[in-house]
Amino acid sequence: MIIELVSTGSELLLGDVVNTNAAWLARELNILGYDVAYQSTVGDNRTRMKETFQHAAQRSDIVLVTGGLGPTQGDITREVLAQAFGLELVRDDNALNMVNEFFVRRGRSMPAGSVREAMLPAGSTIMANPVGVAPGVILKVQSTLFVLLPGPPSEAKGMFAEQTVPLLGHLYGEQGAIVSHHFYVYGIPEVALEATLIDLVKEQKNPTIAFLVKEGYTEVRLTAKSQTKDAAELLLAPWCAIVKERLGDAIGRDSDTTMAATVAALLKESAATVSTAESCTGGLIGGAFTAMAGSSEYYAGGVISYSNDVKASVLGVAEESLQSFGAVSEPVAQEMAEGVRRVLKTEYAISTTGIAGPGGATDTKPVGLVYIGIAGPNGTSVYKNNFIGDRDSVRNRTVESAMYYLYVMLKKDIGQ
Amino acid sequence: MIIELVSTGSELLLGDVVNTNAAWLARELNILGYDVAYQSTVGDNRTRMKETFQHAAQRSDIVLVTGGLGPTQGDITREVLAQAFGLELVRDDNALNMVNEFFVRRGRSMPAGSVREAMLPAGSTIMANPVGVAPGVILKVQSTLFVLLPGPPSEAKGMFAEQTVPLLGHLYGEQGAIVSHHFYVYGIPEVALEATLIDLVKEQKNPTIAFLVKEGYTEVRLTAKSQTKDAAELLLAPWCAIVKERLGDAIGRDSDTTMAATVAALLKESAATVSTAESCTGGLIGGAFTAMAGSSEYYAGGVISYSNDVKASVLGVAEESLQSFGAVSEPVAQEMAEGVRRVLKTEYAISTTGIAGPGGATDTKPVGLVYIGIAGPNGTSVYKNNFIGDRDSVRNRTVESAMYYLYVMLKKDIGQ
Repeated sequence: MIIELVSTGSELLLGDVVNTNAAWLARELNILGYDVAYQSTVGDNRTRMKETFQHAAQRSDIVLVTGGLGPTQGDITREVLAQAFGLELVRDDNALNMVNEFFVRRGRSMPAGSVREAMLPAGSTIMANPVGVAPGVILKVQSTLFVLLPGPPSEAKGMFAEQTVPLLGHLYGEQGAIVSHHFYVYGIPEVALEATLIDLVKEQKNPTIAFLVKEGYTEVRLTAKSQTKDAAELLLAPWCAIVKERLGDAIGRDSDTTMAATVAALLKESAATVSTAESCTGGLIGGAFTAMAGSSEYYAGGVISYSNDVKASVLGVAEESLQSFGAVSEPVAQEMAEGVRRVLKTEYAISTTGIAGPGGATDTKPVGLVYIGIAGPNGTSVYKNNFIGDRDSVRNRTVESAMYYLYVMLKKDIGQ
Repeated sequence: MIIELVSTGSELLLGDVVNTNAAWLARELNILGYDVAYQSTVGDNRTRMKETFQHAAQRSDIVLVTGGLGPTQGDITREVLAQAFGLELVRDDNALNMVNEFFVRRGRSMPAGSVREAMLPAGSTIMANPVGVAPGVILKVQSTLFVLLPGPPSEAKGMFAEQTVPLLGHLYGEQGAIVSHHFYVYGIPEVALEATLIDLVKEQKNPTIAFLVKEGYTEVRLTAKSQTKDAAELLLAPWCAIVKERLGDAIGRDSDTTMAATVAALLKESAATVSTAESCTGGLIGGAFTAMAGSSEYYAGGVISYSNDVKASVLGVAEESLQSFGAVSEPVAQEMAEGVRRVLKTEYAISTTGIAGPGGATDTKPVGLVYIGIAGPNGTSVYKNNFIGDRDSVRNRTVESAMYYLYVMLKKDIGQ
């Protein structure tokens, strides 16, 4: 079964709006066992939209179209669909009642322009809109099913969940299930990671394996398709076991929470607190902790020691260390972590000092060199990193890696 | 000129990743006067990708493809492009040097798999990657220009701006111009703002006016289209004058820099430094300052005083103030700002203390109540705010507003 998503609307082509409907629909369809093969976007241009519909009818079995169902002159999806396949545009009384009802229920009378929302290609059936005005449209053209959904995300999602999903089930039955498992891998470059699992990469068919490089980690995704969820899980089980065995502790988490949330859970479990001494990240690690509601339970605060003065005066980093090794060095990272742990009286502490770029590099200290210190009740570890990317990317990788290193120490201390 | 964007990657079709590249590229192309007519997405499937490229070549003059240029087996864009048009895949020595150089500069040797990144369709030329490893690819197929960009947004954006834009100018010349002016307005609600400019709203055709509500401010965008940039500017000039006259000091900035960058420029101008004492923002203001390269010139650092202990012990906030008024209060905001200014020895200081939610509210202190203190050589101002939104939104509005309040003080002190 070939599924295609068509998003209409000039605002998408102008880049004024990011297309979140397509990602959301793709994910939902995927869970139901439908593979989305194509996604296209077209503006409010009759010729191009018509061509897009005709092309979709040739190559796809189900075409989900979002957008252009409103009452304005710019809402042309219904009429272009009719034109594309030589169908008449007719007033649908059920649709008109539905539109009218929306206004009546709110004690208003229907605006004249809203009649457009009930003008449908001949042969259409409609879907109720649980959130807004415009009814959805279902039209079978030869062997292809067109499903028109409204553009506003809340309307598209509501209608899809309540109307389209049952309809697809009724028309096409169970599609089997697609199940994915995700492993978030830290500290191994993508190429080395692929080499470690190259047999799976070569053998893949069902399950499949994919590597998604993120800032500070790589996501390994195993996906299997089968008749039922249980059967897909059975296919995945041996592959998951291989990934876990080969990657071991490099897997920082295997669920779709953040590393910060994983660390937060461990801190709460051990009733411990943490503080931060940030140089190159300048507050982002504090920002990541405090983004979580309730973080005051385990995050005490921190010092943004951007200047050397602050490193020395507030955190007690030795002037000698700053002179001899420079601010971006292992000893300074260690003293920063231990300093903030002492000053803020926490069990754990994180420090960062590095060269985020674009300036500041020297012959021996390139952009991307970042020392991350983790201090705890059983001592301090300092990690040297060479991150790739621009200033934002280096800083984001530092935040993510610092959380991972703290996670490693917490796991060890808890004895897991 | 018909422009098409093709995004490749199964993660987009699975809905795991929202396609932000397409929106960004569309906006940039639009500014250059290029209209994007189609946007398509296809997974890592050879047959479908090939068909998508062939279809794009038939209907479009310029096809920008993002994704699939990495070193792994899943990165198939280059070879599928070659297959689609019956071209050989050949090793490009310039590309290989570029890839190799990337690793050499970082003191590492090139992984064997990276050779893939230099295997290009015959007839290709390459574009340097200012951020990552994979070179971009330019290939003319009959009358259609294919431009292959990497998938990671920082690489796609960097390469597009530095390499693709000059190339398009060289190949296709001026496209006519769409020019926008942006005014970033603080402290006026959207409805009141629209009322102030309602005559422009009603009259609009070319230029147009739009109001975009952001976190902490509203962007007023004036856009004009004409044959040349100068002609578009001429259309815009009287409208810009009206907006400036009516909104006055509520316009915090009129260029597309951030408020943080505007503040940074004023700090540099007056050779002054700033520090931060953050409670509810937990490091985000420090993060915003240090996101800018060269921020060590004016940003000394800060204290993330998330717990009351840190407010008292590190910043010297009086225990009595914390007891009598609570941590979220005007006196505490004032003492935090003055405390960090004293401890970090800076000319200016920002403090934040508030209830970001979802928990922590009381009868008298609702979610969204945030005190922002600005301390300077001529005294301290504390602003009481009632922000609307969820935790993220309250925190982002706090950051943006704090920067604006510091801007107000700096402008006054400089005498502008």
